[in-house]
Amino acid sequence: MSLQRRRTDGMNSRGGASAEPATERGRQSRQRILEAAERVFGEKGYFPASITEITRGAGVAQGTFYVHFKSKREVFNELLEALGERVRHTAAAAVVGATNRVEAEERGLKAYFDFVNEHPNWYRIVRQAEFVDAAAFRNYYRKLPSGYQRGLRAAMARGEIRSTDPETLAFCLMGVADLIGMRWPYWTGQPIPRHAFDAMMRFIQHGIVPAGRQASTEPRPDANSWGT
Amino acid sequence: MSLQRRRTDGMNSRGGASAEPATERGRQSRQRILEAAERVFGEKGYFPASITEITRGAGVAQGTFYVHFKSKREVFNELLEALGERVRHTAAAAVVGATNRVEAEERGLKAYFDFVNEHPNWYRIVRQAEFVDAAAFRNYYRKLPSGYQRGLRAAMARGEIRSTDPETLAFCLMGVADLIGMRWPYWTGQPIPRHAFDAMMRFIQHGIVPAGRQASTEPRPDANSWGT
Repeated sequence: MSLQRRRTDGMNSRGGASAEPATERGRQSRQRILEAAERVFGEKGYFPASITEITRGAGVAQGTFYVHFKSKREVFNELLEALGERVRHTAAAAVVGATNRVEAEERGLKAYFDFVNEHPNWYRIVRQAEFVDAAAFRNYYRKLPSGYQRGLRAAMARGEIRSTDPETLAFCLMGVADLIGMRWPYWTGQPIPRHAFDAMMRFIQHGIVPAGRQASTEPRPDANSWGT
Repeated sequence: MSLQRRRTDGMNSRGGASAEPATERGRQSRQRILEAAERVFGEKGYFPASITEITRGAGVAQGTFYVHFKSKREVFNELLEALGERVRHTAAAAVVGATNRVEAEERGLKAYFDFVNEHPNWYRIVRQAEFVDAAAFRNYYRKLPSGYQRGLRAAMARGEIRSTDPETLAFCLMGVADLIGMRWPYWTGQPIPRHAFDAMMRFIQHGIVPAGRQASTEPRPDANSWGT
């Protein structure tokens, strides 16, 4: 997936003045800088990383960096926003066609864990963001649940899940995704084992589905939890 | 609560050689350094913090720091271990006398959120640890769930909660505590609002308690969720 910015108003994500590159060559440099920054911030960490390491990784001159970004923090914040958008799109695409909320959760979580496996640097970047720019981090975490809450609210209206405070439920479910994502795909570097995924889904399902609807959503031993 | 080390074998928590201070004055200096480090790492962050800021905050000479600690990282790791022990003790003390697992979870979570309110720096230190010392961070996160898993396993044996994989369940519940703790006590600086605490508890309760036992643990409108 491309890291190219989706904004076309010539303003960067922080309202700064660095313009969208006018040339194809400029766009390619910018893209290479973002990709190198993702590697360097992910592998080494934001604070120990230097702009020199990023430009070296991108194969561009130091001066080229400053054509596109004002600072290390600006490239970090743009990366965080682009990666957040990417993970939201991945999760949203995964739930298309789900016939109920539990299935949507299951598909979204599976897609999320696969994303963590494929992009461990993304995971580290998000987790560092709190200490790089607390406001950008909160913004990242607030964007995620607002769309998520709409989905939960709609499922409550349909009676598929228990009526409750959607914001609390969104943070509960994100918390589960966060630590299960840390324990398995992130720490092990391997896809989440089936037993852990299924135990997590049973906890979520019982936690959100009214008792009267449980029967139809009980995991079947022959069911393919992976939705593939 | 005291931050003084509980080890008495003359080795520090990382197996290093810095000895337990022999004098009362030495113990006081060490304690002041740890307390200043908690403030500096919490408020400013580990990476931007300097040893000079810590010694200035503690009111000790730079040389005194090196009598007790080899490096900034060593003081950070010791702080992380001491704080982890403290939060485990606080949560364990809170659940004494709980008559069932849901009540134990409720008391433990309330104590945890209160702890985050009273020690926002602790929260920031734990979240930074991943980038300071990945091994120490994993160790911290692995110590928490091992005792927690024993409690969950015992509750499964008693039939109070559904039989499931205890490690997965422990990480699910810690994830809920982590993000709800971030969203309310940490972000707002205020105690968690009652509606959020209750919505979280309903999610957990339905998630872990078998349907046949739900009636007795359904939240009563007049129940005092805070256990105070």
